[in-house]
Formats: sequence, structure tokens, C-alpha cells
Amino acid sequence: MHTISDYQGFFLEYLSKKTITKEPKNLYEPISYILSLGGKRLRPTLVLMAAEIFEGSYNEALDAALAIEIFHNFSLIHDDIMDDAPLRRGKETVHEKWDVNTGILSGDAMLINAYQLFENYNGTTFRELAQLFTKTAIEVCEGQQYDIDFETRDDVTIPEYIKMIEYKTAVLVGAALKMGAIVAGASETSKSSIYDFGRLLGLAFQLQDDYLDAFGNPETFGKQVGGDIIENKKTFLYLKALEYASDDEKKQLQGLFSLNPDDPSEKISTVKHLFETTGAKDRTRAEIEAYTKKAFSALNDLEISEEKKALLRLFGSTLMNRSV
Amino acid sequence: MHTISDYQGFFLEYLSKKTITKEPKNLYEPISYILSLGGKRLRPTLVLMAAEIFEGSYNEALDAALAIEIFHNFSLIHDDIMDDAPLRRGKETVHEKWDVNTGILSGDAMLINAYQLFENYNGTTFRELAQLFTKTAIEVCEGQQYDIDFETRDDVTIPEYIKMIEYKTAVLVGAALKMGAIVAGASETSKSSIYDFGRLLGLAFQLQDDYLDAFGNPETFGKQVGGDIIENKKTFLYLKALEYASDDEKKQLQGLFSLNPDDPSEKISTVKHLFETTGAKDRTRAEIEAYTKKAFSALNDLEISEEKKALLRLFGSTLMNRSV
Repeated sequence: MHTISDYQGFFLEYLSKKTITKEPKNLYEPISYILSLGGKRLRPTLVLMAAEIFEGSYNEALDAALAIEIFHNFSLIHDDIMDDAPLRRGKETVHEKWDVNTGILSGDAMLINAYQLFENYNGTTFRELAQLFTKTAIEVCEGQQYDIDFETRDDVTIPEYIKMIEYKTAVLVGAALKMGAIVAGASETSKSSIYDFGRLLGLAFQLQDDYLDAFGNPETFGKQVGGDIIENKKTFLYLKALEYASDDEKKQLQGLFSLNPDDPSEKISTVKHLFETTGAKDRTRAEIEAYTKKAFSALNDLEISEEKKALLRLFGSTLMNRSV
Repeated sequence: MHTISDYQGFFLEYLSKKTITKEPKNLYEPISYILSLGGKRLRPTLVLMAAEIFEGSYNEALDAALAIEIFHNFSLIHDDIMDDAPLRRGKETVHEKWDVNTGILSGDAMLINAYQLFENYNGTTFRELAQLFTKTAIEVCEGQQYDIDFETRDDVTIPEYIKMIEYKTAVLVGAALKMGAIVAGASETSKSSIYDFGRLLGLAFQLQDDYLDAFGNPETFGKQVGGDIIENKKTFLYLKALEYASDDEKKQLQGLFSLNPDDPSEKISTVKHLFETTGAKDRTRAEIEAYTKKAFSALNDLEISEEKKALLRLFGSTLMNRSV
């Protein structure tokens, strides 16, 4: 087995080898651009790791890893257009650097290109990869639609919210691990368990993201603390607070979430106080822990050595132990 | 064998059975909408016809036909956004009826949905369909990019133009026929020849579209005659005219193609006159005939009865004998 940073290295090398700007340049240059912007390369790394966990070689998993990373970046390009976002990883978004039309068309080509990479696998593997990819990609689109719908709804339930983040982000983590398992020829039980591990860990991670946005350490969180509160985003914390709030607290919270003050510091501190007094803060932490535990228990069914399970647990803990 | 209008009927019945608006509604309603707008359903009809030409049943080809139609409509949604088109088949375009974001995301879901339909085929058929689809879809994206690029270029060559229309529209006609052949288990020679027949006929049809835009009968052409001239579109006629024009004619033509007069009737008649005097009109007609002939000669290699070849020739002639 290699380390996570080994896998990152292998993937980056493969990516740079495979990123060639073909004709028509205006279609392929934006693709090379977005793929070069960096990021943690979490998903492709998971594909490679999973392949070796199930006794395959990371080498054979490189095309599946690239497909996942290209799909992820396709969704970033189209999402950035929809969100009218000017920046991505600190650089101009594709539709800013070029234009919306370029973002649409280059994104489309990336989605197709992801499928093309599966052609490097034979018979059953090709089919399994393509089917898992299709199922996941549809879910990601549905998750994005739910996210858009929720912006203008004030009756979003907790199960609906969980489904939204599951589809929008968690299933792709599960799919990345399962793709590695598919390439390595793992058993059905193992493929299904490693998928659940990734999906549940992805859910826990996303809930933690909501949590840290309000209660994270500004010096280590990476994003602006309170950003979701400023944008009146109906996160898990917010929905939980509404669920447990008294009528007065509910009114106060909804009132605050209809404001956009120039200086948001007072709004942020009042909202955070409400997240605490309603019990939403504690309940969110408990939920994160529950999903993390569920993710780890999915590992029990894997037909792999205890050593390898320990490695997956270490990965899970590292991912979840971002500074709070 | 059935008739073309039988196949249209079978397809429409299947389409209406398969078009269910699932949740999230905002993702799937625009998909049902665009698929309900009508059109000739040429591509899916070709899939069904080709399946029976090669001794398969149209029934087994319905999912492939639906995939092709969904892909075609995906490309219409995204193209209409790029062209800022208000109308499609006389009705509001998706991004007009909803918004650009909806058009982007619903289009993405359609592209993935097309792949999903191939899952109804087993082993080799699934792979063959998916690979042909991927190759074709990438070419359609590249063709669309070339088309966009050509708008701002004044050095487009005839071979470049042919490649653009081949990728943007002709390959999908070839792919539709080949998909029917794949489902029916036709030989490699037959699959390759029927693809060429469709591709070459698609090219001839597209060139004829350019031709009829200037020289078609206003009462039967369906679109506004002279539309391309009004929009200064660099069609095959225009490029051929430039190729054979004297220096004076070239200047005149390029001058006219930089104008946007309120009343375009004089511009249209002068340009049409130049298309005639330069010989572009006759050369374009010759080119259309040459591609049609090439298409028909691709039929010679098909391992099917003379009766069925006659049927394909009849289809080709009918398609090409729109009123001039």
C-alpha cells in the first residue's frame, strides 16, 4: 500500500500527462484550465486507494480516477455559472475568464469525456463503472436542483436536507471508492460496503462543513466563518434550530435570516447564540458523530485485512478531524 | 418492414409512455416540455428503421431511439441558450420559459439520461452503443464550438466548413442508423456502411439547407428565405462564392456581409445575384448531388436484400427532394 500523498502524486502525474489541449482550442483550453486549478484531488485519490485496498493496482484505476475528477470539475464549471461565482480556488471561474457559453459547452464535453475514459476497461468493468457513474451523475444533478429549490422554500425538512447533501456531494465520495473496488474486482459485499462508507463519511463531512461555518476556528477553517449566516443559507444548523426553537426564537431566527446588514457581525453572533440556546449546535455535533460512526461500521463487512480497515479508519478520522 | 410513419408512431407512443415527470419537478418538467414540442423525430425513426433493415425488431431499438432523441434535445436546450434563441418549434425555449440555470441543469440531466437508456442492452451491445454515442456526442460538441468560432473568423476554408457541419449535424444521423444496426446485430461492414450512408446524407441535407435558405421556395421551405443572408452567416454558398469571386465581387460580397439594413430585400437580391454570377449556386448544387451520390453508393456494401436497399434509397430521395 501507498500513502494518500503517494496517490495524489500518482494522480497529478497522470493528469498532467493526459491534459492535452486539442482542437478546437476554445473548447479544450477551458478544460485544461479548470483541471489545473488544483484542489485536494480527494475523489481521484480515493479511487486509487480503494483499488489497492482490494488488491488491485492503482495503475489500473487511473482512468477511473481521472473520470471522477473530470466529472467533479464539470459540475464545478456549471455550478459556478448557476451561482454566478467569480472565483474558484482563488482564480477566475471559466465563465468569467471566457464566457457563459464556453462554460456550458466545455462542461458538456467534460461530462462526455468522463464516459470516454471508461472505454479503457473491458467487458463487465466498463459496464459496472459506466452504470455507477450514470446513477451518481444523475443524483448529483438532482441534488443541485434540490439545493436551488431550497433557496426559495421555507418548509425544507431535515430528511429533505439530508437527501440534498447526500445527492449533491456524498454519493460521489461513495462512488469514487466503489470505482476503485470495481477496478480491483472486489466482491459485491465489499463494493457495497465501501460505497456506504464513502457516502456516510461524505454526509458527515458535509454536515461538519455546515457546523464549522458557524463554529469553526477562523484560522484553520479555510473559508470565512459565518459565511452561510451572512448568505441566509438554510443549513443543517439552521433547520435544526428552527425545529427546536420556541415560537419567539423561531420568529427571531427567521427575522435575522431575512436581513442582509452591511456589517453582519451582530447578526452572526445572535444567530450563533440561537444555534446554541435551541440546542441545534449540540444536536448537529451529535448527528455528525452518528454519521461518522455509521460510516466506520460499514467497514466491518469488508473482506479485507484488519490492517487495511485501520487505514480506512485513519483516512476517515483525518478527514473528520479538521480543526473545530 | 414498416413505413417511416409507422416508426414515427411507435416512437411517439414509447416517448409518451416514458416521459414521466419525476422529482425534483424543476429538473424534470423542462425535460418533458422540450420532448413534447414535436419535430419530425427523424433520428429516432432512423434507429427503428435501421433495426428492421438488419433483421432486428424495432421494439428492441426503442431505448436506443429514445437515447438519440433525448441527446438531440439536450443539444437544442444548450444551443438555444448559447444562441439566446427565444423560440424553438414556435414555442418558448426552455431558458425563456424557465431560466438559463434550469436550461443548463436539465440539459445535463438529459445527457446522462441518454447513457442510462443503453443500460437496457446487454454486454457487447451496451458497450457498442455507449462508445458510438460518446464518440458522436464529443463530435457534436466540437462541431458546435467550430460553428461558434467561425462566426468571428473570416478565413474559414471549405474543408473546415464541411468538418463543422459533419460534426455538428451529420454524424448524429449516421449514429442513429448505426445504433439500429448494432441492436440488430449487423455485421461490421454493414454497420460501417450504414453509418457512412447517414453521415453523407446528413452532409448533403445540411448543404441543401444552406442552398434552400437562398434559393428555396418561400412557400414550402419552412424557414424565412434569405435568413442566413440577413444574419451574415458564412454558409457553404457564401464560402464558395468567395472562392470563385473576382476581387471586385469579393469586396462587394464582404461589404454586404458587414451590413444589417432595416429592409434587407435589396441586400438579399444582390447577394443571391452574386451567388449566381460567381458560380457558387451551381457548384453548391453539384456538391449536394455529389454527397447524395456518395451516400447512396455506401449502400452497395450493405449485406441486405435489394428490396431493403431500395427502401433506404427511397428514404434518402424523399429527404433530399424537399421543394427547391
